[in-house]
Amino acid sequence: MPGGRILIVNPNSSARVTAVIDRALEPLRRTTSMRIEVVGNPSGPPGIALQADADSVAPFVQDTVGQSDALACVIACFSDPGLHGAREASAGRIVLGCGESGILHAMMSGDRFGIISLSESSTQRQRRMVRTMGVASRYAGSVSLSATAEDVTSPAMFEAMAGAGDELVRQGANVVVMGCAGMAHCRDALERRLGVIVIDPVDSAVAMAIGLCCLKGSRVHGDAA
Amino acid sequence: MPGGRILIVNPNSSARVTAVIDRALEPLRRTTSMRIEVVGNPSGPPGIALQADADSVAPFVQDTVGQSDALACVIACFSDPGLHGAREASAGRIVLGCGESGILHAMMSGDRFGIISLSESSTQRQRRMVRTMGVASRYAGSVSLSATAEDVTSPAMFEAMAGAGDELVRQGANVVVMGCAGMAHCRDALERRLGVIVIDPVDSAVAMAIGLCCLKGSRVHGDAA
Amino acid sequence: MPGGRILIVNPNSSARVTAVIDRALEPLRRTTSMRIEVVGNPSGPPGIALQADADSVAPFVQDTVGQSDALACVIACFSDPGLHGAREASAGRIVLGCGESGILHAMMSGDRFGIISLSESSTQRQRRMVRTMGVASRYAGSVSLSATAEDVTSPAMFEAMAGAGDELVRQGANVVVMGCAGMAHCRDALERRLGVIVIDPVDSAVAMAIGLCCLKGSRVHGDAA
Amino acid sequence: MPGGRILIVNPNSSARVTAVIDRALEPLRRTTSMRIEVVGNPSGPPGIALQADADSVAPFVQDTVGQSDALACVIACFSDPGLHGAREASAGRIVLGCGESGILHAMMSGDRFGIISLSESSTQRQRRMVRTMGVASRYAGSVSLSATAEDVTSPAMFEAMAGAGDELVRQGANVVVMGCAGMAHCRDALERRLGVIVIDPVDSAVAMAIGLCCLKGSRVHGDAA
Amino acid sequence: MPGGRILIVNPNSSARVTAVIDRALEPLRRTTSMRIEVVGNPSGPPGIALQADADSVAPFVQDTVGQSDALACVIACFSDPGLHGAREASAGRIVLGCGESGILHAMMSGDRFGIISLSESSTQRQRRMVRTMGVASRYAGSVSLSATAEDVTSPAMFEAMAGAGDELVRQGANVVVMGCAGMAHCRDALERRLGVIVIDPVDSAVAMAIGLCCLKGSRVHGDAA
Amino acid sequence: MPGGRILIVNPNSSARVTAVIDRALEPLRRTTSMRIEVVGNPSGPPGIALQADADSVAPFVQDTVGQSDALACVIACFSDPGLHGAREASAGRIVLGCGESGILHAMMSGDRFGIISLSESSTQRQRRMVRTMGVASRYAGSVSLSATAEDVTSPAMFEAMAGAGDELVRQGANVVVMGCAGMAHCRDALERRLGVIVIDPVDSAVAMAIGLCCLKGSRVHGDAA
Repeated sequence: MPGGRILIVNPNSSARVTAVIDRALEPLRRTTSMRIEVVGNPSGPPGIALQADADSVAPFVQDTVGQSDALACVIACFSDPGLHGAREASAGRIVLGCGESGILHAMMSGDRFGIISLSESSTQRQRRMVRTMGVASRYAGSVSLSATAEDVTSPAMFEAMAGAGDELVRQGANVVVMGCAGMAHCRDALERRLGVIVIDPVDSAVAMAIGLCCLKGSRVHGDAA
Repeated sequence: MPGGRILIVNPNSSARVTAVIDRALEPLRRTTSMRIEVVGNPSGPPGIALQADADSVAPFVQDTVGQSDALACVIACFSDPGLHGAREASAGRIVLGCGESGILHAMMSGDRFGIISLSESSTQRQRRMVRTMGVASRYAGSVSLSATAEDVTSPAMFEAMAGAGDELVRQGANVVVMGCAGMAHCRDALERRLGVIVIDPVDSAVAMAIGLCCLKGSRVHGDAA
Repeated sequence: MPGGRILIVNPNSSARVTAVIDRALEPLRRTTSMRIEVVGNPSGPPGIALQADADSVAPFVQDTVGQSDALACVIACFSDPGLHGAREASAGRIVLGCGESGILHAMMSGDRFGIISLSESSTQRQRRMVRTMGVASRYAGSVSLSATAEDVTSPAMFEAMAGAGDELVRQGANVVVMGCAGMAHCRDALERRLGVIVIDPVDSAVAMAIGLCCLKGSRVHGDAA
Repeated sequence: MPGGRILIVNPNSSARVTAVIDRALEPLRRTTSMRIEVVGNPSGPPGIALQADADSVAPFVQDTVGQSDALACVIACFSDPGLHGAREASAGRIVLGCGESGILHAMMSGDRFGIISLSESSTQRQRRMVRTMGVASRYAGSVSLSATAEDVTSPAMFEAMAGAGDELVRQGANVVVMGCAGMAHCRDALERRLGVIVIDPVDSAVAMAIGLCCLKGSRVHGDAA
Repeated sequence: MPGGRILIVNPNSSARVTAVIDRALEPLRRTTSMRIEVVGNPSGPPGIALQADADSVAPFVQDTVGQSDALACVIACFSDPGLHGAREASAGRIVLGCGESGILHAMMSGDRFGIISLSESSTQRQRRMVRTMGVASRYAGSVSLSATAEDVTSPAMFEAMAGAGDELVRQGANVVVMGCAGMAHCRDALERRLGVIVIDPVDSAVAMAIGLCCLKGSRVHGDAA
Repeated sequence: MPGGRILIVNPNSSARVTAVIDRALEPLRRTTSMRIEVVGNPSGPPGIALQADADSVAPFVQDTVGQSDALACVIACFSDPGLHGAREASAGRIVLGCGESGILHAMMSGDRFGIISLSESSTQRQRRMVRTMGVASRYAGSVSLSATAEDVTSPAMFEAMAGAGDELVRQGANVVVMGCAGMAHCRDALERRLGVIVIDPVDSAVAMAIGLCCLKGSRVHGDAA
């Protein structure tokens, strides 16, 4: 069984968001022999609110991924800052963005996904991401909370998230993706409340990373031929 | 770490195809504590050549998935016969089709995927599958080998597969998906030859199944909140 | 004028649905010299509620079409079970699915079509069908009745159908397709009520079958050259 | 059985094209009790070569359709000049364009259609038509003959048409649509030569018109309820 | 600096609409050394209400463009009647349609545009135009005023336009395009009211025409090489 | 007539590329009273070869745009680094990316555009950009030169560019976009050679900027109402 490490990169500077992500991954850690580590970006912005925030942290993400010896790296911000660059620079490396992974996981879980987004600016980025991925015909839309990444770490936001989820279901979503890495703590409750599958993007990305690390490990162990 | 079982269902009756799939999964078995078992369909057709073949095995797939107590089931036929029905009938169950999984994995590995298909009829099904998934803007096309599922288990087919792969790259693919569960044994050689990532769909589906079993296991172990 | 026969295949076991389809075709029979026959599937499920139901009847549809000497065969279930397989197996044979035909007819009748569906599961199949056909940009959506195929043969469902139709018009449909073979009896009343064209899918498929039988007949009679 | 009339409108002034269309419909006439009449447009251009030609005949088409008492009208020019306007002005009237009908018929006959076009300008119009119809994901492309509508009435063009058809098959078409109303005379030979279904658009439109006239006639005869 | 002339062609016969367009361009005139002239079509319909109206004026537009010696011509009707034909007939000439220009400008101004349309018939034409342009994934929809081109020249329509704009924003538009050449006079007030960018299509087309005249002028002045 | 300034931002550090852009704009300068200034990015990479290069210069672009008092800013790199962020941060400011502008201009100039790209990595970015813009159905593809931004400033590259253009025309493009800001010097010769319109993206963006500055100026001068 693969040892090694999966590195989760939170590109914002919020220690609270990093802690929420880290704690939310505790149960997953118990299922694998790989180490799952979370790092933050102390010199980054407190959250990825605007496109300029996403752009500003892309070099940090690429450097962190490039210098790491982890088996797999996961970008723990729904905007996937630096994803394409990090992948291009490290061919053969497992690099996952939680936005992309969460959306692909949603596509295996229902016919149309909707996204709970932090803000109108996030919604715009999500629309662009969905088109860039080429999956717009599976996308019901995004509903915004008018909140920050730190805000959603608080249980007080649950009702707002449930309201946004209900609205997405009304708009035709039958699977809901949480559009921020800091919402993980309320996935289970939200799923029970909405009655449709709820995807935590970091969960999905780490699960895929575990699987892909096994796949990569299998190729090192030897060819099947 | 999850024990449990991942059940791989080859819906055709070819013992040779079942054996090739089984042997190809040997290295992946060494990376996980889960058991990976492969079953065939002795009463099915020798291969899924036509749409009618795919249709004829869908009930078998759904019954096998429905009666299994495996943590996850993988349909090991690129046409994913019975996938949507099996998923619908067993909400909460992990059911993966190797066609869908291979294509989603390809979308994380390159910008445009091409598919090596067995026959012109397979190509038609792949076109419909790609549109059903809503990912046609990422699809470069399929190139057919005019072969059966049994044929491709033979090393003699390697040159034909490499030729099809080269043609896909000429048509703009920068990742190539092997469009049959029985081609796994030559993935590594094909990747070296073509110079682009080559996806074995069963590999991809089993890797995702491992990851999703960990994710599911984590939810049984306890809530992160 | 072509004699011959058009065979309408209702893949479910409901004698009531078969009878409603048969009676609804009475007026069309008076317009053609071809015989229009309707057969049911006594050993099938009572309705095509789930994807597994559709999958389970595909082999019956393909056998019935394959063994018939009718000039044209029409699958009288909106999910078109077995359509692609039946077509592939009988090149040159006229095989129509009422789902496909109804949607193509709608595309000649208005800019955006909406579908009245039986259930949420039907809606999911319709979304997949619309994408498979490649016509999603013409699709306003489906609104479900939470009913069975037998239910909709009753006049008591009219108000529910009208309500679903109104909702589709609000969502931008300017032509409404009835998403079940058993709704034909209320097409006229629904059209008057909604104020937009209403398509009965079996009607559309049989009309196209009549036309295509004439076309095929013309080719037997002799070449135009 | 419906008596009545189907009016075929050739919007160009070429008596030769009108005669070719008329003669090509002879076999279809023997299959129906409806009269099938073809009219030309003596004051129109000799062919619909440019978009301006199409635009210039739209009012003629709309007037001819509007003043006719035929049960159905078919626009016998692949660019469908005046189609949307004629339909809008005569709600409830059966108005078919041979471009649209030929393409929809092709979508029931194969997965990807290609079009043999007269000229580069026709190809541009076909691309726009395919996008307007919302069916671009089913379109393999157009290959141009650099010919006029009169040219293609000559048997001498057969080799050029077969060459264009071969090229379309190479580009992934598995059904070929003849992109001009004057090509009908060589449909059968072309189909034998290419080995895929070949669609004559006027044939398809008249066949659909026959079917839709039966459907309309059935509604006059009485309600099925 | 280029002298020359930009010719704005209002294809309808309403002197009031022509005057509103002309007056609305006054401020733009002060920004350029080019003359901006507006002509109407006294023998046209009072407004382009139906598709047949659009078709009927296409030849006038093409003749007017073809005979003009203006540097650039702008079609001042949102349906862009005659645009493709005029462009094809005068390669190298700058010919802009205000519908196309307004939509392209909107695509630089926001992620999803909505259109305030005159009538349900206009909405249908706009849907077709958006698909023809291939930009449907950026289109939130159209909301109709049930008004004529003359109606919207009146300040009394402002509330109805604001209501339509609000509805478009609710439907996900973050930029609103006024779908008629006669609405220019209330663009500023509408933008203040809606809180999103509002595009007047004639404004956009004339602005692009000014820019493209400069570009063309630069090529006459001499090559940069 | 507007005075003011249009600022062209070359985000790479190549003085040669900056000089080529500057010189290529000389003829456009003679057509407007606005000043057109070009700045480079001395601390940037020598060219935007990889996605990581594009990401690394986005903050520079956003800072430069944000601190400038120019009426309009144009990003003179086909990857449009920083475009969405710069626009979002400066609502009401005219910010154009030459990639986006060149593509929109191409959409007014032909039905399908192809792009001459520097490298395979550029091609990937162009595919993503085209999907992000939502205009993939108008895109024929990209053909790469395997060159750097500096390379293409040399006349020696002309034959390679012409070859790439010919290949794009063969693939169905009827307008060709030069996919790098440093290719402007050979636009005229390339257009003569290929026989289709050739778009220089910086030219297009500056022309649009001139037009939009006039439009903005007109709103300052006073309301048309």
